[in-house]
Amino acid sequence: MNSKAAHEVETPAEPRVVIVGAGFGGLNAAQALARARAEVTVVDRRNHHTFQPLLYQVATAGLSPGEIAEPIRSILRRHKNIEVLMDEVTGFDLDHRLLLTPDEEISYDYLIVAAGASHAYFGHDEWEEFAPGLKTIEDALEIRRRVLLAFELAERQAAAGEAAEPLNFVVVGAGPTGVELAGTLAEICRHALADDFRTIDPRRARIHLIEGGPHVLPAYPEDLSRSALKQLRRLGVEVLTSTMVTKIEPGAIYMGETRMEAAVILWAAGVAASPLGKKLGVPTDRAGRVLVERDLSVPGHPEVFVIGDLAALNDDAGKLLPGVAQVAIQEGRFVAKLIRREIEGKRLRESRPAFHYHDKGSLATIGRAAAVAQFGKIHISGFIAWLTWLFVHILFLIGFQNRVLVFVQWAWSYFTYERGARLITGSTRLPGWKGSDAGAPKAEREQEISVVGRK
Amino acid sequence: MNSKAAHEVETPAEPRVVIVGAGFGGLNAAQALARARAEVTVVDRRNHHTFQPLLYQVATAGLSPGEIAEPIRSILRRHKNIEVLMDEVTGFDLDHRLLLTPDEEISYDYLIVAAGASHAYFGHDEWEEFAPGLKTIEDALEIRRRVLLAFELAERQAAAGEAAEPLNFVVVGAGPTGVELAGTLAEICRHALADDFRTIDPRRARIHLIEGGPHVLPAYPEDLSRSALKQLRRLGVEVLTSTMVTKIEPGAIYMGETRMEAAVILWAAGVAASPLGKKLGVPTDRAGRVLVERDLSVPGHPEVFVIGDLAALNDDAGKLLPGVAQVAIQEGRFVAKLIRREIEGKRLRESRPAFHYHDKGSLATIGRAAAVAQFGKIHISGFIAWLTWLFVHILFLIGFQNRVLVFVQWAWSYFTYERGARLITGSTRLPGWKGSDAGAPKAEREQEISVVGRK
Repeated sequence: MNSKAAHEVETPAEPRVVIVGAGFGGLNAAQALARARAEVTVVDRRNHHTFQPLLYQVATAGLSPGEIAEPIRSILRRHKNIEVLMDEVTGFDLDHRLLLTPDEEISYDYLIVAAGASHAYFGHDEWEEFAPGLKTIEDALEIRRRVLLAFELAERQAAAGEAAEPLNFVVVGAGPTGVELAGTLAEICRHALADDFRTIDPRRARIHLIEGGPHVLPAYPEDLSRSALKQLRRLGVEVLTSTMVTKIEPGAIYMGETRMEAAVILWAAGVAASPLGKKLGVPTDRAGRVLVERDLSVPGHPEVFVIGDLAALNDDAGKLLPGVAQVAIQEGRFVAKLIRREIEGKRLRESRPAFHYHDKGSLATIGRAAAVAQFGKIHISGFIAWLTWLFVHILFLIGFQNRVLVFVQWAWSYFTYERGARLITGSTRLPGWKGSDAGAPKAEREQEISVVGRK
Repeated sequence: MNSKAAHEVETPAEPRVVIVGAGFGGLNAAQALARARAEVTVVDRRNHHTFQPLLYQVATAGLSPGEIAEPIRSILRRHKNIEVLMDEVTGFDLDHRLLLTPDEEISYDYLIVAAGASHAYFGHDEWEEFAPGLKTIEDALEIRRRVLLAFELAERQAAAGEAAEPLNFVVVGAGPTGVELAGTLAEICRHALADDFRTIDPRRARIHLIEGGPHVLPAYPEDLSRSALKQLRRLGVEVLTSTMVTKIEPGAIYMGETRMEAAVILWAAGVAASPLGKKLGVPTDRAGRVLVERDLSVPGHPEVFVIGDLAALNDDAGKLLPGVAQVAIQEGRFVAKLIRREIEGKRLRESRPAFHYHDKGSLATIGRAAAVAQFGKIHISGFIAWLTWLFVHILFLIGFQNRVLVFVQWAWSYFTYERGARLITGSTRLPGWKGSDAGAPKAEREQEISVVGRK
């Protein structure tokens, strides 16, 4: 990997479309370019596409990583004009139409940047270690590890005769991810783990959901927010709205003067666009999202598109399009169609249409038989909403061979309350836990993790 | 966890049996003590029992960790006289009948040590980093990561225009684990990965199996060894017997003067008993196994038993009992029965019987439709042996609720050649790879891993 070999020496006969990121946006763009007269290269630093809507199920031990993630290669295997490279993108040279990676430069005729977003800690990146977010399989495994380990450590303490306070779990941010994490945590404490321990009682664990705004699910209509709140409370979640987190330290969270002990803190609050957005050298908004043109291209470079969570575009009513899968999917398909028609000479670059988002509705799950759904003016709550959510998401596991297996697994765990993936892997320590590694020097902590990780 | 609280302050009304390790031996001992007039405590540093015979399937991306591992708590949940503690055992105080952990001392009336074994690198522990073994879920995930990553890095190099040599995979040691790893690797290169890449051809990858002795599967009768060799070769494995590995460095392995480049090296050669064996302060053999009495107790301490891979006991013919699941299971049940009868006053300690191993036969799988089996004088090879192996192992997934799911998954991947769990998680670097971290200072490598692991 030492030579800086460039792809252009091969001079492909057909135009080259390079897609950065194989999330919903990038993957749908690639699939829509299958059998186009173009060479397509998908670059992602991971080897797998993650079905993010079900990531919370991995974090809460309901599904295994392999059930919601699929190698990008195998999803795109049938399309012979598409190649996949697992590589890190370090930057762009828009003037020379080059994508930069640590070891090579990849030339393109069209570039689609779909690098997504991660968590924002509002200037408090030091909180990440004590309050992980949920964006990747690794994140989900880390959350699962912390949640399960908290119960194990509590049982150990209690068995050793120490006073056993009920465990506190805190979820920060009551958007869809925060709500489904809090709801599912409540569910597993009451059911899946209830009979597993002899000394502590997992049913006594308290789940706190903290939201800065006045409502849970702030993006939903008020009646659904209210319904979600009611459903969360029924599941046993303690909801605090209009409450700002001011400090997080190992094992504790502060809301102004109030300090709350917390065995596990999970972060589902802010969103920060991928740093690749800024590297394009075009205007971005405060969250780092690229301010794209109506056709999703970047200003001054009609051959470069930004889609998905990394793009900032307003809908017809002037409202920013939300960072959800449907937006990314529709944007990916729109851009692919546009490129396809230009390559085939059916449309001139000058006469591009504008992107319009077709809102098919929103669904948020809360827990077992608990959800809210909005389809235009139709608002549904509870079991029916949850069934709809289940149906849509299982149907939606496109390209996943084991769709049926996931369904069987799900049905199984619905009726048995079992969580089949309750494994603790990696380090056996928890930040802020008595006798844990929170006080140890950083180098030592890292060694602990690396030793376990490499074993 | 600061106070040194001891269990004995609770003074249980019934005798306390403490079991160290929840592998096949420990788990079967615990289950055989269910509903006995005893308080049973199972201590393991992991939260899950690992079904080791299928671990190679996780390492080769055929099964997910959750499908072959199950929380110890949920396996033993129904038995109200059994408690489970996830803790590290640091030593023993046999005179005071205490088990030592970092934070407490656990008193016992009977102690069963079933701490198992790990890899031996014959005095070359520095090889472990470059040639991981396969004993735990973490090991399996690390092997999976390396194997899949090797193909990704090769594709990246080839796409960048560099010469693409076929990948070499080397497995050291041709016991059952080495044979199944080599056979399955050959299978996935030829099938599961074959159409995934555009530049490299995974079918050209070479799988080498290196064995110091004259035969593969040395513990099997010679006709089955010969058959296994033939089946391995048919799968495309290149077998080198009577060949000693003299040095391993990042990306290369030495057999005397011969140096072989290797993308991935896997270690399936030596076995070293758990260091807990030595901490008992009783005689051990060269591999660290405890030289137990005929009743599996340790000399001078009839209340302390050692079972499974950690125990060294000869069979009636004077041959050391092999480190296989069946031996551990029978030993666990034998010891539990003995304790039970003594507790119930049905038998005196002085009149203990000797343990006799009932050899039900041996099975070793090699790959798809390839295996060998021995049942007394009956020797089988090939498809029938493989079906037997499959049947026995699926039947054997005791206490695993998802037995049916594993079977469905298996059937699915048998007919589709799919490997459902082809995820790369953790670091994206590979030792010895060009442009990789092999040359970086150790601290930097650890940071890389810890950052990824914690993310």
